[in-house]
Formats: sequence, C-alpha cells, structure tokens
Amino acid sequence: MINNKGSSSEVMRAVVFDGRLRFSQNIPIPEIPKDWARIRVQFVGICGTDVEILNGYQQFQGVLGHEFVGVVDQCGSPEWIGCRVVGEINVSCGSCKWCKRGLGRHCARRQVLGIHGLNGCMADYCILPVSNLLRVPASLSKEQAVLIEPLAAACRILEQIPLAGHECVVVLGDGTLGILCAWVLSTVVSRVTLLGHHPHKLDAASWRGIEVSNGVSKSLSGADVVVEATGSGNGLSQAVALCRPRGTIILKSTVSMPESMNLSSLVVDEQTILGSRCGNFKTALELLNGHPDMPLERLITATYPIEHAKKAFDRTSGSDALKVALSLN
Amino acid sequence: MINNKGSSSEVMRAVVFDGRLRFSQNIPIPEIPKDWARIRVQFVGICGTDVEILNGYQQFQGVLGHEFVGVVDQCGSPEWIGCRVVGEINVSCGSCKWCKRGLGRHCARRQVLGIHGLNGCMADYCILPVSNLLRVPASLSKEQAVLIEPLAAACRILEQIPLAGHECVVVLGDGTLGILCAWVLSTVVSRVTLLGHHPHKLDAASWRGIEVSNGVSKSLSGADVVVEATGSGNGLSQAVALCRPRGTIILKSTVSMPESMNLSSLVVDEQTILGSRCGNFKTALELLNGHPDMPLERLITATYPIEHAKKAFDRTSGSDALKVALSLN
Repeated sequence: MINNKGSSSEVMRAVVFDGRLRFSQNIPIPEIPKDWARIRVQFVGICGTDVEILNGYQQFQGVLGHEFVGVVDQCGSPEWIGCRVVGEINVSCGSCKWCKRGLGRHCARRQVLGIHGLNGCMADYCILPVSNLLRVPASLSKEQAVLIEPLAAACRILEQIPLAGHECVVVLGDGTLGILCAWVLSTVVSRVTLLGHHPHKLDAASWRGIEVSNGVSKSLSGADVVVEATGSGNGLSQAVALCRPRGTIILKSTVSMPESMNLSSLVVDEQTILGSRCGNFKTALELLNGHPDMPLERLITATYPIEHAKKAFDRTSGSDALKVALSLN
Repeated sequence: MINNKGSSSEVMRAVVFDGRLRFSQNIPIPEIPKDWARIRVQFVGICGTDVEILNGYQQFQGVLGHEFVGVVDQCGSPEWIGCRVVGEINVSCGSCKWCKRGLGRHCARRQVLGIHGLNGCMADYCILPVSNLLRVPASLSKEQAVLIEPLAAACRILEQIPLAGHECVVVLGDGTLGILCAWVLSTVVSRVTLLGHHPHKLDAASWRGIEVSNGVSKSLSGADVVVEATGSGNGLSQAVALCRPRGTIILKSTVSMPESMNLSSLVVDEQTILGSRCGNFKTALELLNGHPDMPLERLITATYPIEHAKKAFDRTSGSDALKVALSLN
C-alpha cells in the first residue's frame, strides 16, 4: 500500500486493493503537504479503470478511486475551506521537461489519484494539490458532479481533433465513457451514432438526436471519426474497419489485455489512431453550463454506502450497469 | 491473372505470380485505353510489397512490379512518345466520393500497378494513364529514377506531419524504405537516428549527419516522431515505447501478419499512430532536385536481367540486400 503520510491517531473508512479488494475502517487519515488540500469525500464513482486495477493495471495497490465530489476541510489557503469541489487526478512534479512544456498530465514522475502512487478517493478523506481543485456550482447534484471526471475525458476529444460539425461520427461502446463521448460530440457534430450491445444502456444514451444501434449498418462504414470506448481489446479492429480512408480513430479504452490486429489496412488507408485520456475539468464544467439538460444523472445505475463497496464492484461488472457510485454520508 | 486487354499476336517477357513466382515469355503485350500510355520498361525495383504479394498480400495475381523507369512508346498524346518517365501507381476511378474529395489514392475502385487489379511493370511493357506519368530529368540515372516511387512514399511523411526542424526523430528499420525515410526527414530535421540490425545497411544509410545504431540507447527514448519501417509485425510495440507522450508514430510497414500489442500505453501517453503509404512523385523529384547529392545509387544492391527474376527475388530476401533491381535491356 502507498504510504501517504497519515497521523497515527486518526483513521478512516476506505476501499483498498492490496491484492484483494477490501473495505477497511483503519486507514490513516492522510496529512497534507504544503499547497495541498484535504477533502471530505461525499460521493465516488467506480470506473472501469478501478476494475482494471483489480486485474493488475498499473500494479497499483492502495486506496482506490479517482472520481469524487467532496468538501475541502483542511487547506493552507483558508478561502478553500468549506468549498464543494471536484479534482483533477494527475499530480505532476512541475519541474521536468514534460511539465515545462505544459504536458504535466504526462509527467513521468506524476502521481495519479487512486491509480499510480497516490491513495484514491474511496475513503472519508483524500488529498490533492489545491491547483488540482475546481469549485462545483451548487446547481450540480452530487450525481452530476461525480461524472465531471469522465465527462472531462470525453471533452478531451474536442481538444485533440478539429470538428466542423458535418462529420459522421461513430462511438463504439455503450458504457458510461462511450455515452459521455457521444453526448459531448453531439454538442458540436450533428451525425453521431452510438453502437453497443445493451438495449438498456442504448436507451439511456438517447439525447440530442444521437442514433443508437446494436448492429453495424452499411451506412456507417466510411465514418470520419470513430471513438473506440468499448473497454475491451476487441474494439480497435472494428473501429479501423468502420473508419474512412484518412479518417481518425480515437482510442479511449485503457485495456491491459493485448490486441491482435492486421496493421496493413491502417497503412493502406492512411488512418490516424489517436490515444486519448484525461481532459480539463474546467472544459467539462463549461460544457455542462452551456448544456444543463445533459442527462448525467441517468448514468448513475446504483449507489451503495462505502461499507458495501464489494457489492458495488460486483454490480459494476454486471452487464446492465452504467456508473455505480459509493456514498460516504 | 489480370486480363489487361492484350493483342493476341504480340507477346512479351514478364515476371508473373499466379500462386507461384515465374518468368514468362508469353504474356500478351497490353493495349492502351484512351488517355493511357504504354511504356517500354527499362529498369524495375523489387519492393517488400512484391515479396508480401508472394505471401498472399492483396490476393494479387498477375504481372508483378510497381517501381520502374521506362520510355513511352504508345500514347494518344504524341508529345509523350519517347519521353523517359516514372509513374504513380494508383489508378483511381475519378468519379467516386473519395476521388471528388481529392483522395483518389484511396478510391475504393482504384487499381494499383502490380498490386491490385492492374498488371505491373516487371515486363517489357506496362500501361498507365498519362496523368500518372512524370518526365525524368536526363541527369537522373536509372538507378536513381527507379527509387522515385519509394522516395515519394518517404516524402509522404512531410505532407502528413508538420516538422519545425528541432524534433528528435527515430526511424526503425534499415531497409530501403527506412533509409529513404531517414534521408528525407534529415533534409528538414537535424536530429535523425536510424535503428537497424544490419551493419552493412547502416553504413549505407550514412548521410547528412544521420546517426545510425544497432541498439536502443537511453537518449533515444522520448522521441518526438518514430517511423516504423521494419517491414515486420514487431516494430510497432518498439515504436510506441520509444515515442514521447503525445508524440507521433508513422506506420509504414504494410505487413499482412497480425501484431499483438498492449494498447493502454498508447492511450495513457496519448500518442498518435499515423498510417502512411504512397506520396507524390513530383514532391520526390523536387526533393532530389534540391538535394542532388542524395546517394540513391548506394541502395541498389544488385541488378539481374529479368530472365533471372527468381534469383533476384531470392536475393531480395537475403539479409544483406537493400534494393534489388531487374534490367530489361
């Protein structure tokens, strides 16, 4: 387990992975370094990446979780105390060549909340640098706020590729991230199709004229942009097949399993595969401000008290689940 | 075999693949459709793609070959008769949606010289639309001219990614295409390293301060651009590992074998993989005009008369060979 410095006398509840998933009531409450804040966590989302960690992703052991909303309760800057916040998950060193280029999210020495080198937010308290925090408007429910992190990841696509609005976009995967990608893209592109295998999830995805389908129709081939968000290793070959020559495939699935595919069509058709990860929370909050009708709550399938984290993880793995959340009240 | 319309009374020498590689003296001389030219072939290069065709690539059967220099001997436009030419290898339909977008090289109905639907140039005569032809300056030897096609493919990279000159570029693969990519990139970027496994080929690659290496040194990791030109299915994982976060991997190898790789680092590091195929011959000729010292002849390992095509193919597969050529004089 990661040894965030904790005061020995105070302990908290937390969901821990140390080779097995377990709920603990004896995790030291973390202390904050200078310029960091301690957050009293209220609501946490379980992400596909958390499930991947149980399968060995990043060899992470410690407190899980990176999607949260909470209230700052300790901080060197008093104006933050009591603020309801969400937090960007990458903590960069600030001094390496990547950080100096403004690529802090790719800092080789970075810590990532609940994923790499830093205990996560499935706990009464988590800590992050103040510079990672964003205030959440009172108008956003906890269900909406906890989805800012994956919504920001979906918004990242808009930063990576220019879209004029007339493009034909196909999103593969009807999980939370796939649906969020479709929603975000539908705010700038009129023709967005979401492909998935779960009628219940496809129903949930309906918004702003997005077409949903559980099969591939001929009209879909030759898409300008294909987003691969199936969360499995099998989506890339399908994405390449659906994409037009010189089109772009956005790769969102961080799967640890290997993928086997024929590379020659990628070369012959001169397609681009673009890896896409985290986005700016500020962009996501601005998008929500402009589209307050985006039905984020619809994506919360179930909420469990943190003590029932194992049940919540089991539910996450069920085929009908979108986002499963943990409550810390 | 592809039935280019041939006049029954006239036959020619040709290298044919019809399930096995063979030399024939009885292939009908092709007739030219309107706006096409017939070229008396003088010199032909054997490409890795030709070898892939013998392994099943594109399921092509017919006259092989797509790298040539020759002289126009029949053409509806008399000004072309007697001209020494090279020819772009993609013949597009001109009327589909890709052609109308200027993406004729990606036309779904395209024919490709000696690769798809059109007999190739390992023969006394080949035919191409006049619009595919480019005159070759008398200053270029046949050894230089026959390398225009792969040189154009290397030049394609310059059209696909903007390069400021300060980038760190690594090229994987010391075959003809890898060396040409390194040479082309070295005309605009000062730090180019070529990685390969063949001391003889690495020697041949030296030009304009290109560093050559048969191992991966630590200073190479974090390259801005990595060109994968190994011609095998194993190079992509290495390319991804050498590339910096948000860097670009140019994929040049059209291999029919599947590649197995872990996709998650591509997503986490937000790298771009860009498929790259054919380029404009005009660009290649202009580049040669600006860099007449580019030592193209150095890449011709051996020349065989067309009658000895089998020996030439065997030589191509040898580990010491760069470009093996066929002569038709």
